[in-house]
Amino acid sequence: VKIEIICTGTELLIGHTLNTNLQFLGRELDTAGYEIAEERTVPDGGEAIGAAVGQALAAGADVVITIGGLGPTCDDLTRDAVAAQLGTRLKFDATVHAAIVAYLGERSIRVPADALRLQAMVPEGATALLNRNGTAPGLWCPAPENRLVVMLPGPPRELRPMFLEQVLPRLRERGPATVLRCGFHVCGVPESVVAERAERILTEFPGIAPAYCARLGEVDVRLSAPPACAPTLTAALNAVHAAFGPAALPPQCPDPAAAVGDLLLRRGWWLALAESCTGGWIAKTLTDRPGASRFFCGSVVSYSNDWKHTLLDVSADTLAQHGAVSAETAGAMLDALFRRYEADAGIAVTGIAGPGGGTPEKPVGLVYIASGIRGRPPQVACSLFPGDREGIRQRTVTLALNQLRLQLLQA
Amino acid sequence: VKIEIICTGTELLIGHTLNTNLQFLGRELDTAGYEIAEERTVPDGGEAIGAAVGQALAAGADVVITIGGLGPTCDDLTRDAVAAQLGTRLKFDATVHAAIVAYLGERSIRVPADALRLQAMVPEGATALLNRNGTAPGLWCPAPENRLVVMLPGPPRELRPMFLEQVLPRLRERGPATVLRCGFHVCGVPESVVAERAERILTEFPGIAPAYCARLGEVDVRLSAPPACAPTLTAALNAVHAAFGPAALPPQCPDPAAAVGDLLLRRGWWLALAESCTGGWIAKTLTDRPGASRFFCGSVVSYSNDWKHTLLDVSADTLAQHGAVSAETAGAMLDALFRRYEADAGIAVTGIAGPGGGTPEKPVGLVYIASGIRGRPPQVACSLFPGDREGIRQRTVTLALNQLRLQLLQA
Repeated sequence: VKIEIICTGTELLIGHTLNTNLQFLGRELDTAGYEIAEERTVPDGGEAIGAAVGQALAAGADVVITIGGLGPTCDDLTRDAVAAQLGTRLKFDATVHAAIVAYLGERSIRVPADALRLQAMVPEGATALLNRNGTAPGLWCPAPENRLVVMLPGPPRELRPMFLEQVLPRLRERGPATVLRCGFHVCGVPESVVAERAERILTEFPGIAPAYCARLGEVDVRLSAPPACAPTLTAALNAVHAAFGPAALPPQCPDPAAAVGDLLLRRGWWLALAESCTGGWIAKTLTDRPGASRFFCGSVVSYSNDWKHTLLDVSADTLAQHGAVSAETAGAMLDALFRRYEADAGIAVTGIAGPGGGTPEKPVGLVYIASGIRGRPPQVACSLFPGDREGIRQRTVTLALNQLRLQLLQA
Repeated sequence: VKIEIICTGTELLIGHTLNTNLQFLGRELDTAGYEIAEERTVPDGGEAIGAAVGQALAAGADVVITIGGLGPTCDDLTRDAVAAQLGTRLKFDATVHAAIVAYLGERSIRVPADALRLQAMVPEGATALLNRNGTAPGLWCPAPENRLVVMLPGPPRELRPMFLEQVLPRLRERGPATVLRCGFHVCGVPESVVAERAERILTEFPGIAPAYCARLGEVDVRLSAPPACAPTLTAALNAVHAAFGPAALPPQCPDPAAAVGDLLLRRGWWLALAESCTGGWIAKTLTDRPGASRFFCGSVVSYSNDWKHTLLDVSADTLAQHGAVSAETAGAMLDALFRRYEADAGIAVTGIAGPGGGTPEKPVGLVYIASGIRGRPPQVACSLFPGDREGIRQRTVTLALNQLRLQLLQA
């Protein structure tokens, strides 16, 4: 099954909106054993999306999924353009109309009648996929030669449940998976070293294709194979994974935050944070996933020196003598988590994320990460991270969590 | 100038990596007055990217920017594929090689010699763009008929400075802007209502094209026009903006967090937060932008009830009688920010982000947002947000900041 994704929206091309839909669909389709052959993003207006759908079908796509342009405004033209491309007409669908009216009624929202009617137009022969988080229905349109065009709304909160509940089950009825894939993450090892070590091992496993993706502080190792090679793929994964020792996260584990959560839960320990330069990002990362309330007490985001002093007992002396960005301050922040807030495990970070605030002695990118477990010697690491503000903060989040992860593994 | 972006990377298509490069390039090119005509994402391996570059040039692109596939591993084949497509050969470049050796030497990183040599291969006639945050250089390759292929490395920390410092200035030398664009954000008004109100006003401004993009709690209104219509565009922007009153953020203001920061700075006020269900996300949002240290003290991320009690003085009575997710708890959390932490302005949030933890009385999506200014009556809003965990948390972040923004506007 060759799947192509076509996203419409000038807001994606001019950078107003980050396209998170591709990641979501990619992950869900991959997990289900399908491959996205290609993705395209085209501007608003029916012409571009109509042409892109036509080209995808001409190039042999079995399934074309369009995203966006189903809303109530004058730049929402996907429905018309795709119907024109497939040579079908749009028909008013009273059931869809009633569903939209009911949706809006429950929320006491009033919208213009024209906008309402527009969203209830369905191509002949298509099935409307009801939208429980918005007004625009998705559209499941059979195309010539047993192919398919699926139109989904752009807002992720509408697209995601519609895809999982209504599109994926219907896709599964059409055909089986085409590729097997597995992998894991390695923390704190450069990409080229990861690749060299993996490939030395993979010479013993024919038919297994490796791929790598470097992130900030992490490398994502992926192995793939045709369905016939399933046993070899499992053996290869085990061998490559073992070669990285504790630097490798368990397969299936998406990031160090998940690994930290699992290790804490296993011991029944509670984690607290003291964050300066990351400004709450470590806490946000830990709570992105459900279930954090079983191991995470909270974070003292002490952005000002005042808060470092009053909430985390960093002494005026320490701040004056060593500065807010110092091993001493990071250590004192961590101490307070154990002493004052009774955490079992803790992470404290302080650094200069930039672009301003750097000096020759303490340049932008200087970050201290203190972490540890109650009653054991803490670890305080000093790093000088390259990159911009976002990169420095992201690296700090990843490496702080990884530093605690390695301590938890040995505890 | 017709610009096409081609991203390579199976990790993008299988959802392991979120493509943030498109947003970055889109925003920077748009600000500089250029349009991205289309973006494509293709899998690893030279074949797909070579074909995509060929198709883009055949379809009339003036500038093709490729992203990714320049790294040191065996799946990094962009350089070879593009050279083959353009009919040029790769030559070893000793200057590039020396730069990579120096970069690695400064960081005491050892990589295999083959990987190093691969990254120093440059197409004949191309200019290497040195990479100050990694090893792979970018490549600026003239193509037939005064066209251009620019190859950039995939990691954002490498791509971003290279684009701003080396690509954008060279692009500017080639030709002027083609479209004018402006816009603003509206908070708390449904998309269809925004569109109807805007379009009623735009009937008086011929030549101005509107576009809308709905986010969680916000609608992005954009107007565009050819360069000749600049005065009309300004007048249209002012008229449409005025129609939304305080619900509209100032033009240029990217989000409610930036607006809140500006309003606080203007008064010299300090903001503190007490976050439960957002788990640090509001603090992270405020500190994404540099300069937050001039108005932001910090956030008490009190994920556990224990922390709500010990750090924010929410009484055991309140927690037992009304629960952690209640107007009373949100109000008490806000109170503590003023009383105990001496904030001038504050936001406190508590809610059920799901997917677990909901009950018939307190379903998933129930969120209390308390906000206010020291010495004035606080506002406590109760909302029932639709969507998944991420959506509920994102809406809470946006609407909490907007709630305080409206209070600051009246203060």
